[in-house]
Amino acid sequence: MKKTLREIAQYLGGSVSGDGETLISGLGTLDDAVEGQLTFLANPKYASKVAATKASAVLLGEGGNAAGKNAIFHPNPYLAFAKLLTLFYTAPTAPLGVMPGAFVAEGVKVGADVSVYPGVSIAPGVVLGDRVTLYPGVVLYPGVILGNDVTLHANVTVRERCRIGNRVIIHAGTVVGCDGFGYAPDGTAWYKIPQIGIVVIEDDVEIGSNAVIDRAALEVTRIRRGTKIDNLVQIGHNCVIGEDCMIVSQVGISGSTQLGNHVILGGQVGVAGHIKIGDNVMVGAKSGVAGNTAPNQVLSGIPVMPHREWLKSSGLIPKLPEFRKTLSALEKRVAELENELAKSKGE
Amino acid sequence: MKKTLREIAQYLGGSVSGDGETLISGLGTLDDAVEGQLTFLANPKYASKVAATKASAVLLGEGGNAAGKNAIFHPNPYLAFAKLLTLFYTAPTAPLGVMPGAFVAEGVKVGADVSVYPGVSIAPGVVLGDRVTLYPGVVLYPGVILGNDVTLHANVTVRERCRIGNRVIIHAGTVVGCDGFGYAPDGTAWYKIPQIGIVVIEDDVEIGSNAVIDRAALEVTRIRRGTKIDNLVQIGHNCVIGEDCMIVSQVGISGSTQLGNHVILGGQVGVAGHIKIGDNVMVGAKSGVAGNTAPNQVLSGIPVMPHREWLKSSGLIPKLPEFRKTLSALEKRVAELENELAKSKGE
Amino acid sequence: MKKTLREIAQYLGGSVSGDGETLISGLGTLDDAVEGQLTFLANPKYASKVAATKASAVLLGEGGNAAGKNAIFHPNPYLAFAKLLTLFYTAPTAPLGVMPGAFVAEGVKVGADVSVYPGVSIAPGVVLGDRVTLYPGVVLYPGVILGNDVTLHANVTVRERCRIGNRVIIHAGTVVGCDGFGYAPDGTAWYKIPQIGIVVIEDDVEIGSNAVIDRAALEVTRIRRGTKIDNLVQIGHNCVIGEDCMIVSQVGISGSTQLGNHVILGGQVGVAGHIKIGDNVMVGAKSGVAGNTAPNQVLSGIPVMPHREWLKSSGLIPKLPEFRKTLSALEKRVAELENELAKSKGE
Repeated sequence: MKKTLREIAQYLGGSVSGDGETLISGLGTLDDAVEGQLTFLANPKYASKVAATKASAVLLGEGGNAAGKNAIFHPNPYLAFAKLLTLFYTAPTAPLGVMPGAFVAEGVKVGADVSVYPGVSIAPGVVLGDRVTLYPGVVLYPGVILGNDVTLHANVTVRERCRIGNRVIIHAGTVVGCDGFGYAPDGTAWYKIPQIGIVVIEDDVEIGSNAVIDRAALEVTRIRRGTKIDNLVQIGHNCVIGEDCMIVSQVGISGSTQLGNHVILGGQVGVAGHIKIGDNVMVGAKSGVAGNTAPNQVLSGIPVMPHREWLKSSGLIPKLPEFRKTLSALEKRVAELENELAKSKGE
Repeated sequence: MKKTLREIAQYLGGSVSGDGETLISGLGTLDDAVEGQLTFLANPKYASKVAATKASAVLLGEGGNAAGKNAIFHPNPYLAFAKLLTLFYTAPTAPLGVMPGAFVAEGVKVGADVSVYPGVSIAPGVVLGDRVTLYPGVVLYPGVILGNDVTLHANVTVRERCRIGNRVIIHAGTVVGCDGFGYAPDGTAWYKIPQIGIVVIEDDVEIGSNAVIDRAALEVTRIRRGTKIDNLVQIGHNCVIGEDCMIVSQVGISGSTQLGNHVILGGQVGVAGHIKIGDNVMVGAKSGVAGNTAPNQVLSGIPVMPHREWLKSSGLIPKLPEFRKTLSALEKRVAELENELAKSKGE
Repeated sequence: MKKTLREIAQYLGGSVSGDGETLISGLGTLDDAVEGQLTFLANPKYASKVAATKASAVLLGEGGNAAGKNAIFHPNPYLAFAKLLTLFYTAPTAPLGVMPGAFVAEGVKVGADVSVYPGVSIAPGVVLGDRVTLYPGVVLYPGVILGNDVTLHANVTVRERCRIGNRVIIHAGTVVGCDGFGYAPDGTAWYKIPQIGIVVIEDDVEIGSNAVIDRAALEVTRIRRGTKIDNLVQIGHNCVIGEDCMIVSQVGISGSTQLGNHVILGGQVGVAGHIKIGDNVMVGAKSGVAGNTAPNQVLSGIPVMPHREWLKSSGLIPKLPEFRKTLSALEKRVAELENELAKSKGE
């Protein structure tokens, strides 16, 4: 595909500076773009690279310095560039239908224009929406319901009766609807509590690779609309994750916890069970959230505290040996002073 | 299935209060149960909800307050409710045999009443016990031995010669018998140490999704009877995990470490290699266990300390900036005092 | 296979003490070896076990004490033993070809002597080198290129256009080339940034089970020659991991970070995005690396500090309650002193 700079600017709602007829045939980074490509500057830290790029044009924030290059100015250049990537590189492919080598139980409802690859297994009672793509090795247990435009990558497993909304993407190896980790002590042994609930994944959710979302014990584990979950994340049974959350890789959320909307959890964060985290909370990587958390905060640490406090406090941990030295020196000096004073009074 | 309250009480070994002829057709939570259902109160924190529930009866601890409802009293209502969930919701399904689309090597021994789904791969020399269920995508390498009543969910991999006991459940995507992470330095490069040992998983073990249990370098990585392992857990080569342990999600245990019986490790705990953890040790979430650990302790922190100590100490980390301020103020005041005293002595 | 002690010593480049004609038919540990086996002592901590072993001979470091046993002395007994394990236990198997039940698209290039098991899916445009082994459930998306002597264990997924070098081993369930976690804020929702780059895995890399290596947003996520990656590791998009690194289980490395050569990251370490870690850096388990890191250091802690400092500092965290007590006692004593001094001056 080729488009002029002017056409691209119109598509994005931006303004052109320089030669609007410049033909653009692809996209590249500031460092690696070649002639014929458009590049972008989202982070002002790299502004000095604009002059040196070999790209034929550059996409910049409004008021940015194009260094004499052909340019498009846009209020949100990062988002605009993402939209161009979609335009240039994500051509829809023709649906392949249910291919030979896929195992589809009798009575499964299959929507229009699906692609079901060889090696997919679909159990009785499953419903597939339109334009669903199931890569090889996907396993759908009985009664699973998928909406429209769902993509499940290779070797994804969805357990019985779980429901997945529209435009959901789940990456390879992820498991939706695994039994929650629930046991009742029975003497010294553990009695398994049957996990008879389900998982509901709402529209526009994306889940990374090798993540696990546990089914509820009795009711529903729910991932709300628009939330994005990274690789190797664990979501415990009965959790409710709000809308437009961002759960970074290797986070673990224990059972029955509720996240508000637009919560952001950094990599490797751990969240205790049976707690509530308010809207717009951001938690720094590797932190541990142990209790209920009011909305609109930035937190870090184990256990979490306000992020600025954490920066100050954690920076002092290496000073502890020095603190100890100062403390015991002070104790000696104070004892000395007390002695001297006692002596001087005794005199 | 429908049963009277009296029948249920007899099954559980509890006592009825109210109308024992009440028909129960299912189970629900205090909040969501409807007429005809039985609910339960295990946590006294929610006792106030009993009066408001729409359930037809409630299962309570002995001496609990049924708020005028039909009730069953039981010494362990949590365990009793789990047993009812099993009774009401886990009907055994008819065995399906080895289904078309499963790849079973010649000479594989297959027990009675198995269900082997399409897309399962079974290598030569494998032995399957009775009532084994293998979901699609399960891969058994050569010489794997499974006991009776084993369930392996979709896309589970069991590597060569590993042995799995009776009534073991392994959830989707988990890998048993992966090569341990062993290399010998050979100049600047790493020489792979062949991992020729196996994994033995004893009876009544359950392992979550996308977990990994490494095979031993030379001998056996062993998971003892009754232990429960959650999703995304890593168990290193040559580990021995005791009986009835509870290993919560995202725990990592390094190679050659031994856990006693009834050890409980919270989510995201890390355990160093070549150490021993005694019986009945509990380790709080996100902690790091670096050395041998005596039995019958509750520990937390990185590295671990007694849990109560950790609560006190970790709570003081945010106070470090204040400590520093106090310390340097004290230093000034002490220096001042020393000066004054010197002066007064000099006078 | 049987070999004399003398033959083995020659193979390894070591020297024999005792009866060089002793026949060795296998290998075992100091504790468990039986007659006819060779054992080894790599860790001097266990030197006392040499006298008690039932092995017919022992492999020792030069100058070690063979306690009267037949022995081979070698400058690097650990490496030597690893080479013997390879010799005794890793017989090459005859190639099986592309087996029935494998789904191979038209036009796929297949090298010599491959083994492609049933249930493997290979998309159009894939190239397989010689002696490639693909276990059941492996899924190769379009355009994937594998070198020679590559082994992909069961249920490994390699996404479109990713390239894998020679002698690479990837263990079961791992995903190479998953979409990176990239979204642009679009009001309160997240707009997916297409991840159109690839992953390149160079020669002699080994990757454990259920790990995830994300494809680059635009260019290349690269794992350089000889690096070893353990189970459940997350490598973010656009990362470059140097040569001969050792990345232990459950490590997470955020996007666009670069590791030098021979970097060792302990279990559960987290590394921030967009940073550089120099050659030969070692990071202790559970640590968090938040910024650029100079080469040739041993680091630990959250955030990291020199490892020795961390040992001292973290050991003082349990002392914080005591520090607080001492601090407030000192404050009182100093106030008292100030009072007394004021009084004495007023007199």
